[in-house]
Amino acid sequence: MNSTIDKTLGELAELVGGELSGDANIRITGVSGLETAQEGDIVFVENEKWIQSAIQSPATAIIAPCRASVEDKPAIVIKNPRHAFVRILQLLASKLPATEGIDPSVRMGSEVQLGERVSIGPLTVLGNNVKIGADACVGPLCYIGDDTAIGEGCVLHAQVTIKHEVTLGSRVILHSGCVIGTDGFGYFQESGQHQKMPQIGTVIIHEDVEIGANTTIDRGTLGPTVVGAGTKIDNLVQVAHNVQIGKHCIICAQSGVSGSTVIGDGVVLGGQVGIGDHIKIGNRVVVSGKGGVISDLPEDALVSGYPAGPHREKMKVEAAIRRVPELLKTVRELKREVEDLSQKLALTQQR
Amino acid sequence: MNSTIDKTLGELAELVGGELSGDANIRITGVSGLETAQEGDIVFVENEKWIQSAIQSPATAIIAPCRASVEDKPAIVIKNPRHAFVRILQLLASKLPATEGIDPSVRMGSEVQLGERVSIGPLTVLGNNVKIGADACVGPLCYIGDDTAIGEGCVLHAQVTIKHEVTLGSRVILHSGCVIGTDGFGYFQESGQHQKMPQIGTVIIHEDVEIGANTTIDRGTLGPTVVGAGTKIDNLVQVAHNVQIGKHCIICAQSGVSGSTVIGDGVVLGGQVGIGDHIKIGNRVVVSGKGGVISDLPEDALVSGYPAGPHREKMKVEAAIRRVPELLKTVRELKREVEDLSQKLALTQQR
Amino acid sequence: MNSTIDKTLGELAELVGGELSGDANIRITGVSGLETAQEGDIVFVENEKWIQSAIQSPATAIIAPCRASVEDKPAIVIKNPRHAFVRILQLLASKLPATEGIDPSVRMGSEVQLGERVSIGPLTVLGNNVKIGADACVGPLCYIGDDTAIGEGCVLHAQVTIKHEVTLGSRVILHSGCVIGTDGFGYFQESGQHQKMPQIGTVIIHEDVEIGANTTIDRGTLGPTVVGAGTKIDNLVQVAHNVQIGKHCIICAQSGVSGSTVIGDGVVLGGQVGIGDHIKIGNRVVVSGKGGVISDLPEDALVSGYPAGPHREKMKVEAAIRRVPELLKTVRELKREVEDLSQKLALTQQR
Repeated sequence: MNSTIDKTLGELAELVGGELSGDANIRITGVSGLETAQEGDIVFVENEKWIQSAIQSPATAIIAPCRASVEDKPAIVIKNPRHAFVRILQLLASKLPATEGIDPSVRMGSEVQLGERVSIGPLTVLGNNVKIGADACVGPLCYIGDDTAIGEGCVLHAQVTIKHEVTLGSRVILHSGCVIGTDGFGYFQESGQHQKMPQIGTVIIHEDVEIGANTTIDRGTLGPTVVGAGTKIDNLVQVAHNVQIGKHCIICAQSGVSGSTVIGDGVVLGGQVGIGDHIKIGNRVVVSGKGGVISDLPEDALVSGYPAGPHREKMKVEAAIRRVPELLKTVRELKREVEDLSQKLALTQQR
Repeated sequence: MNSTIDKTLGELAELVGGELSGDANIRITGVSGLETAQEGDIVFVENEKWIQSAIQSPATAIIAPCRASVEDKPAIVIKNPRHAFVRILQLLASKLPATEGIDPSVRMGSEVQLGERVSIGPLTVLGNNVKIGADACVGPLCYIGDDTAIGEGCVLHAQVTIKHEVTLGSRVILHSGCVIGTDGFGYFQESGQHQKMPQIGTVIIHEDVEIGANTTIDRGTLGPTVVGAGTKIDNLVQVAHNVQIGKHCIICAQSGVSGSTVIGDGVVLGGQVGIGDHIKIGNRVVVSGKGGVISDLPEDALVSGYPAGPHREKMKVEAAIRRVPELLKTVRELKREVEDLSQKLALTQQR
Repeated sequence: MNSTIDKTLGELAELVGGELSGDANIRITGVSGLETAQEGDIVFVENEKWIQSAIQSPATAIIAPCRASVEDKPAIVIKNPRHAFVRILQLLASKLPATEGIDPSVRMGSEVQLGERVSIGPLTVLGNNVKIGADACVGPLCYIGDDTAIGEGCVLHAQVTIKHEVTLGSRVILHSGCVIGTDGFGYFQESGQHQKMPQIGTVIIHEDVEIGANTTIDRGTLGPTVVGAGTKIDNLVQVAHNVQIGKHCIICAQSGVSGSTVIGDGVVLGGQVGIGDHIKIGNRVVVSGKGGVISDLPEDALVSGYPAGPHREKMKVEAAIRRVPELLKTVRELKREVEDLSQKLALTQQR
């Protein structure tokens, strides 16, 4: 199944600002990847090595980087085919979660301030003193706590929970089931029992952040938990209290960042990564999937494993330890030989 | 605490199609495991070695595979006692989440098509052009997006989210908090920032699939993310965009499958397993708990560890590396001995 | 950003039962950590080594353990400064999720029993025969299934799901998105397919338990899944069917406990820990982050790694295996030297 569209090749060429090669009136009815292309589809090829496959595919048209190579098939010629393809995809992109305007079933607290063109879906509950910026779109069945501020153009999908006093910058996207601003996991011991440390901080999420489904971000104990501008967080991620995440990071699914850890800009965490508490991760660090970080990492480090260490060294050790069973045997034999030699030498000396 | 029931032994024998041994009028008031059995309970034993324990337990009756051995206690005799026990459990099984019929508080989009005997619980929101098959049961506080099709006899528990254009086959069970069809985690770089790749694909879930609480399944970028018939997925699992999972797989809690990976039929993933992206997993592969797969696996492979490798070899290496500290010492000593021998030999030769 | 307050130093001294040092009328407008202190803030120092930093900080007042050392700054002197600080934080602590009383939009089942001063937020759905104890506070958009009993003073935040027949003791706190009492993950094979094992047990959560956002706790197959008094569970944790967790445990984020495992009292599981099924974990066991436990553990064990073993031994092995690449080289050289020696010796003997 591919995604459907109904445009002419000429219309698409104009949309993406590309050069038309072939009949402008050709109907494009779908958008697809190269492997699943069908008649009516438009596909894209980023470099020349895929152009022959694209020409031989059932696709009706191609977005390609050079004219010469696509004489055999209708095409849009453009320097950056991926970018053009994305423009077309955006035409088809996921519909916004709410209907237009404020659904009459929305439960509104007191002193709520809504910007222009805000839409809120059915059965969403807003606390008191909530501010929502212009063009923001809040899905159905969401809960937004007291004193929360949501920036312009934010999109909250269905069933999002935001607790009180949270701040979202502009154009933040929150996917279904994510929970922002819940209490951090902090206790102190008293008479042999865990007593709850009140969590009175908050969460600040800067502009252009996207947060995945069922991800949880705890509020700080005193100050804020912070997610920097442009950072993208996948599904089922845990961000603990007082964590500070820099700008333009990528945090893949099921990763967890423990309390008070500070992550620099441009950091990439693979899937199922764990970062300990009170750790400093430098800018542009990359942690491979399933890595477990238990100490500070300098800028540009590429680490893997648990405890995480330099990836190259880890790979070398990983290859080496597979030879340990054999090594044990070799050393056992060597030991025997050395004993044997030692005896022979002793005999020789006695002669 | 065991589960309560109120039947006679005769009624239960008839229900499961077993042979009665003892008084048909004995009242059975509970169903339990062997260790927690109380008076009034019925228990089951699968093979003869447990029959004596069952007879000596406080249970009032037994489901057993042979008559001879249960003369001392009322029993239902049947070839497959587990199956009979399950039949009785089904009598008591979890109530369906919704009340009968369509609750008046349900928010219905336009052009919704409901089959016969569909029930929908309070405060559930349906988008436009949603189709729900006969006998399906949708719990309270669910959200079902536009153009979604739900097969006959599906059960959606409370607080489920399904985004637009998702397709569920017959008898699919979705547990509370799961999110189906959210955007995949795809970005491309432009002027040093992560730009969102529109996710315009969908999700197809085939018949008899069960999906656990708070599990997330992303929609494809272009085509569909697919879960094959009869596959069972536990809680808090992540299935990324464009993943294809085969039939009759078992995916345990907190596992994650990265984008575009293809999983065969009958595959078993233990708890907290991670599978990298664009990987092919053959039919009947088994990955042990916490395993991390970063390359293709052939049919019937049994792997563990990270990076995942053949389980037997991994166990051998695991046992061997525990001896490395001792091995380091042995080699140090050997080195000294060899040096020593070398010197002695040199002296011998000088004589 | 620090948390705001508006009290005099004298009022705070009285609140915490401490001795005032300085002007009682000084206005305290914030509470903060030492590093982020601003004018108007009160901070605390637990021991003398931090007192000078606190005096030099912009904070207006200090909570300190001894009078002599704080002559230069207004202070509250008290034996346990942390405890006093927590008392002040509690003043500011997270607001309860619901408005006062029962919101008119709450969907009430039949035979619901509510204690005194219960509050329930908008659009929450209660099944039949639900009992809620005095002073409990249920947030908006929650679902509480039939025959569930919620103890006195419990707090359920927004979007919590509790299935039927679950029991919560007094003062249990459930955070947003957690799902209690969903079906366990149990199947049996029949004609090559996975058949659902009915899950007819329940969940019992004892008093003073706190459960994090989007955590899932499955109901037992027959008997109950149990969480002992005072245990604290973080976000995104999975507790499978029939698990029994003892008292006063700490279970960090993204950990998972497989079916029928029994965990003692005072156990600590770090983040992303996995425990296999049918395992017994003794009292006061500590499993480090990312540890994977696949066999029983005696009381007081401190383990790490996968498969989890004694932490000290694991650290030793971890350090040792980093030397394996070098060791392989050393052994190769040794082997050559021994061969060399062996030849020389043979020659010597031939002389």
